Amino acid sequence: MKKTARAHTNIALIKYWGKANQALKTPLMSSLSMTLDAFYTDTTFEHDSSLTEDTFILNGQKQTPEESKRVFNYIHLLQEKFGFNDHFTIKSTNHVPTSAGLASSASAFAALATSFAASYGLDLSRRELSKLARLGSGSATRSIYGGFVEWQKGIDDASSYAVPIDENPDLDLSLLALEVDTKQKKISSTKGMKLAQTSPFYQPWLARNKQEIAELKQAIKEKDFTKIGKLSELSANEMHACNLTANEPFTYFEPETIKAIKLVENLRQQGIECYYTIDAGPNVKILCTLRNRKEIISAVQKSLTNVKIVVASFGPGVTLL
Amino acid sequence: MKKTARAHTNIALIKYWGKANQALKTPLMSSLSMTLDAFYTDTTFEHDSSLTEDTFILNGQKQTPEESKRVFNYIHLLQEKFGFNDHFTIKSTNHVPTSAGLASSASAFAALATSFAASYGLDLSRRELSKLARLGSGSATRSIYGGFVEWQKGIDDASSYAVPIDENPDLDLSLLALEVDTKQKKISSTKGMKLAQTSPFYQPWLARNKQEIAELKQAIKEKDFTKIGKLSELSANEMHACNLTANEPFTYFEPETIKAIKLVENLRQQGIECYYTIDAGPNVKILCTLRNRKEIISAVQKSLTNVKIVVASFGPGVTLL
Repeated sequence: MKKTARAHTNIALIKYWGKANQALKTPLMSSLSMTLDAFYTDTTFEHDSSLTEDTFILNGQKQTPEESKRVFNYIHLLQEKFGFNDHFTIKSTNHVPTSAGLASSASAFAALATSFAASYGLDLSRRELSKLARLGSGSATRSIYGGFVEWQKGIDDASSYAVPIDENPDLDLSLLALEVDTKQKKISSTKGMKLAQTSPFYQPWLARNKQEIAELKQAIKEKDFTKIGKLSELSANEMHACNLTANEPFTYFEPETIKAIKLVENLRQQGIECYYTIDAGPNVKILCTLRNRKEIISAVQKSLTNVKIVVASFGPGVTLL
Repeated sequence: MKKTARAHTNIALIKYWGKANQALKTPLMSSLSMTLDAFYTDTTFEHDSSLTEDTFILNGQKQTPEESKRVFNYIHLLQEKFGFNDHFTIKSTNHVPTSAGLASSASAFAALATSFAASYGLDLSRRELSKLARLGSGSATRSIYGGFVEWQKGIDDASSYAVPIDENPDLDLSLLALEVDTKQKKISSTKGMKLAQTSPFYQPWLARNKQEIAELKQAIKEKDFTKIGKLSELSANEMHACNLTANEPFTYFEPETIKAIKLVENLRQQGIECYYTIDAGPNVKILCTLRNRKEIISAVQKSLTNVKIVVASFGPGVTLL
């Protein structure tokens, strides 16, 4: 009746930026991510016929009905799917600093889907779990698996799920999450994704998706850090280029984002190989190898003011605790 | 034997960003610009069989052979074209603050081509002058005419020239050139144009050129400030999106560029209509109408530190003084 799951968040290297179906959260493109060890969510799901209401406690704080709405709607959807209707209590602890620009919704909905299924004794494959997670948040689809994960876009609810590419990559790859200062109000991912589709470059980008996924999978197979870095940086920039050319144009970049981008460019010119990726926010994540990590961290601290850096590497898939 | 011409610089609203032929400086796309009243170059060209050397004096300073190389090569090319070979003296005064992010080469080579032709008594049409100017600097092609000017890309030296769209536009349109601080070393236009062609969005952009030119011409005809602004902003962003997705990626944006972009976005959200355009540098130019000009200038001064603002409107074509 009461089960706890832990799921790690992930960062997309080939980006997901557009929904084919708003309700099913099926995407317009396949994406490929790296699950991160440093950031995770623990979620306990308990259901009981004796409970008189639904409760959502996040980081020890009972959430208001308004704050709980998304999570409740999600659980009600899953309950309907499997024919359950009793009340439940969700206790969730996020080990994802929201300010680091990493979506906590990925680990949150992966942990929630898994604890929900276990609590009801549903014997679901990880593939089925990834579909359930997707109904909560697109990026959660990928957090079911560890290491490198592909979210195959599919054509409907049944065919849109994650597959593991390499759950335990034997690859020297670190991610430095740079938390930069910002006071700017953010355009939500949902809104940004819709706007981006008005860009003249959106369809050309989509047309490249299959090739980009194939190239990154090949680079992962070959343990080719340079190729992985270049493809990741390109995918992120394609996403931000679509935002910049949308009608109307917008950008998640802040002044500090440009500083971080130029820093990475400068480091590369000095022979210190590293690449950046940027999601729907101003924060920059740097991909590097262990050899250069210390030097890059020191350069970041010198160039950017008030920056916090979190170091991450490959994290595992979802587990029951 | 001695003639003086004045040419004004221009800002491309539909951008030129790529050469079809490096030597002829024929472009991969047509562009459409606005000639600016606030910035110009006066150039005196004198040739005489009694002169014993070629001389180039810029802003009162005699230039070294290295500094004169581009200009001398250009004049030697023109002389060869028309069968002249005597020595010459060029005196040029730039009224284009180089820090304002406006290319002085546009007005410089337009004035130089015109004074050269007049000095040799060549009776050339403005179309022919625009072709000569093009051989010096691509953007100079457009500075032969005033107002709105289209540089038709053509297919060769004979067919690549500027045509006037509206030399005296009856249109309320101001340009605010924002000079922002920068210490960053710039990627030259020549290098940037080549790199941009490696972007997956470059060909899709080129494929849109004909339509974009047609739409802007229609908007000019309809005196539709909103359409002119939107199309101009899109073209600039398409150029910068190609840079961001080039292999390797680069950007002319600086932190202050992002601040200026966000300021324009915020002003629009407040109902103060304005648009930006950005060339191969960090400086932002704002397009606005007279009604909002004062308010925008005050907002810029409040938001950006150490910013200088130059106000411009439509300038005339090249003239002999």
